Amino acid sequence: MTQALHSLPTPSLLLDVATFERNIARLDARLRARGNVLWRPHLKTAKSAAVAARILAGRAAKAAVSTLQEAEYFAACGIRDLLYTVPITPDKIARVARLTQRGIQLCVILDDLAMARTLTREGALLGVRVPVMLEVDCDAHRGGIDPASPELTQIADELAQGRGTIFRGVLTHAGASYSCTTSAQITALAADERSAAVKAATRIRSAGVACPQISVGSTPTAMFGDSFDDVTELRAGVYFFNDLTMAGLGVCSLADVALSVLTTVVGHQVRQRRLLLDAGWMALSADRSPASQRIFAGYGVLASVDGQLLPGLGVLDTNQEHGMVGRIDDQPIDFTDFPIGTRLRVLPNHACATAAAFDAYHALMPDGDVALWARCRGW
Amino acid sequence: MTQALHSLPTPSLLLDVATFERNIARLDARLRARGNVLWRPHLKTAKSAAVAARILAGRAAKAAVSTLQEAEYFAACGIRDLLYTVPITPDKIARVARLTQRGIQLCVILDDLAMARTLTREGALLGVRVPVMLEVDCDAHRGGIDPASPELTQIADELAQGRGTIFRGVLTHAGASYSCTTSAQITALAADERSAAVKAATRIRSAGVACPQISVGSTPTAMFGDSFDDVTELRAGVYFFNDLTMAGLGVCSLADVALSVLTTVVGHQVRQRRLLLDAGWMALSADRSPASQRIFAGYGVLASVDGQLLPGLGVLDTNQEHGMVGRIDDQPIDFTDFPIGTRLRVLPNHACATAAAFDAYHALMPDGDVALWARCRGW
Repeated sequence: MTQALHSLPTPSLLLDVATFERNIARLDARLRARGNVLWRPHLKTAKSAAVAARILAGRAAKAAVSTLQEAEYFAACGIRDLLYTVPITPDKIARVARLTQRGIQLCVILDDLAMARTLTREGALLGVRVPVMLEVDCDAHRGGIDPASPELTQIADELAQGRGTIFRGVLTHAGASYSCTTSAQITALAADERSAAVKAATRIRSAGVACPQISVGSTPTAMFGDSFDDVTELRAGVYFFNDLTMAGLGVCSLADVALSVLTTVVGHQVRQRRLLLDAGWMALSADRSPASQRIFAGYGVLASVDGQLLPGLGVLDTNQEHGMVGRIDDQPIDFTDFPIGTRLRVLPNHACATAAAFDAYHALMPDGDVALWARCRGW
Repeated sequence: MTQALHSLPTPSLLLDVATFERNIARLDARLRARGNVLWRPHLKTAKSAAVAARILAGRAAKAAVSTLQEAEYFAACGIRDLLYTVPITPDKIARVARLTQRGIQLCVILDDLAMARTLTREGALLGVRVPVMLEVDCDAHRGGIDPASPELTQIADELAQGRGTIFRGVLTHAGASYSCTTSAQITALAADERSAAVKAATRIRSAGVACPQISVGSTPTAMFGDSFDDVTELRAGVYFFNDLTMAGLGVCSLADVALSVLTTVVGHQVRQRRLLLDAGWMALSADRSPASQRIFAGYGVLASVDGQLLPGLGVLDTNQEHGMVGRIDDQPIDFTDFPIGTRLRVLPNHACATAAAFDAYHALMPDGDVALWARCRGW
């Protein structure tokens, strides 16, 4: 493997498969211990058939996606039960209907009465019944209707009665969990996430509308939630790769970060005490999510080519194709340890953003082989 | 055109070609007025044959690039005089040599004596002479050797004498200009940029080594520099698209921003006074460069589908595929102005980063047509 890591072009995206599979097993064990809640992995981070195949191995072939392009890509890979987690709009209905007509169960979401009417009318005109969930707001973070809103039952009824829709249930996402600073906060938010969704479903059922599914989830709340009672499915996506944001939240340790960017030292800025890398924000992403967390991040932390952490070193700044590495305590770097041409790895701030910079993973297999796993891209 | 803008999938990347061509003409006029300095456009922002063809129309087919992938792509497009502006490392020499053997003049850069020796030795072993420039540091921002350093002339001599290299001259880049807050600062930095490069060239020439080229540039210093005397070429890349960072620097006005992301309103968060868009950080990038500047940015400012600015509205926050739009003064939005399905444009913080999210431009031609211009990608 080390030989391969010296011959790959840099920057390249590495996926440590042993760590990735350990992360999958860890969430799996957690959910089994909490009432065997069913899960629907979110593939917005992975965007890869090979990655999805390992996540879904031995499980039902269902997933959540963040774009219609992902839906089409994963449908072509044989995943026929999909949930598109950005609210549907009139212009996207025809594209959804084309998948429906091919027998793909692509469930959409919405939170607006006028849009519910449009969807069921357009679905009927196109000769399809589009599965749909009603998005509920649990943390004022993204979309969704207030579970106490009078419109909640109106929308559910519209979707259930409409000829162009099949009402599947309610969905929420505690996106605010990414900004928590303690695990106790995350646990509390997980309880809010669950109770908002259950409250909405209960109101809808009380109004006489069948509401079979209650879908919740985010990686932090999936890992710290105490109870998933009454929840029918849990969504999470980042947990199988992990990143510095998840480590900063206490969701994982740095040893659980499966993703890294392979890079080469291209220069020494002696006066500024910086190593220059050939990985800038184009490869690492400009995401600074962990900046407010306990773990220093800058644009990523450093490891050796074989994955051993190099404590105290971080990517302090970036240009488009340059990363500037320094000691976090601003002490001098011993440049003789890092001659030009030295290969290093950068652990990413945000796995979703860093992976998006690349068209493929170089998957480091437990047996030492390196496989190329393609990613999809676009909308 | 408006019809096309309602049928394109969203998010999509729009390039207003009239604005783009006006920006090219503006820099061109500036350089003609200042001694007709030759320029070498940097194509790291464009990454597109169609864009490059318009930038280079009527000029010598030469350019700067930020990756070897760009070098190979633009060489295949017929641009045979290229400058790769990330320091060369041992592992990349063979790939450079393959272009050299095909008759492409791909000039590399470095700032390290050991690397200079490696390059000239490896070049000779591969049977090529690699054109190379010595990078000089003018602002402690990126790479480059101190123009006063004793090693400067040693490296130049090594490159000039070596059998595997052709010494072309010196190069610098005032990357710190992106962080200036006044045009006077930029003008001063442009003077520093020029004088660092000229000083280095003068020292090298005094040591008896021919130093034909002096290459400087960044978009801000190109637009605000008073003198380019003795400079043989100027590099700039962002100026032809422009963005909120350039507007914040006073390099352009918002009307000069040629790039935007077409997006659809997918939700109304009434309590939070937010519109939800289907363009999050995946489409807009997580780049927050203008955050410290005079122009509010968040993740971008809003315009109508036909490009009219919507003053007071900004993308205040993003998720992967959601943008949250609010009024900058936090007053309520009149949601009836923006029904679900409304199309809007977002002007980008940083053109290089936003364009990188897409595989193609939808070029809005002055005659109303919309052309698809492909981009290259990767390393």
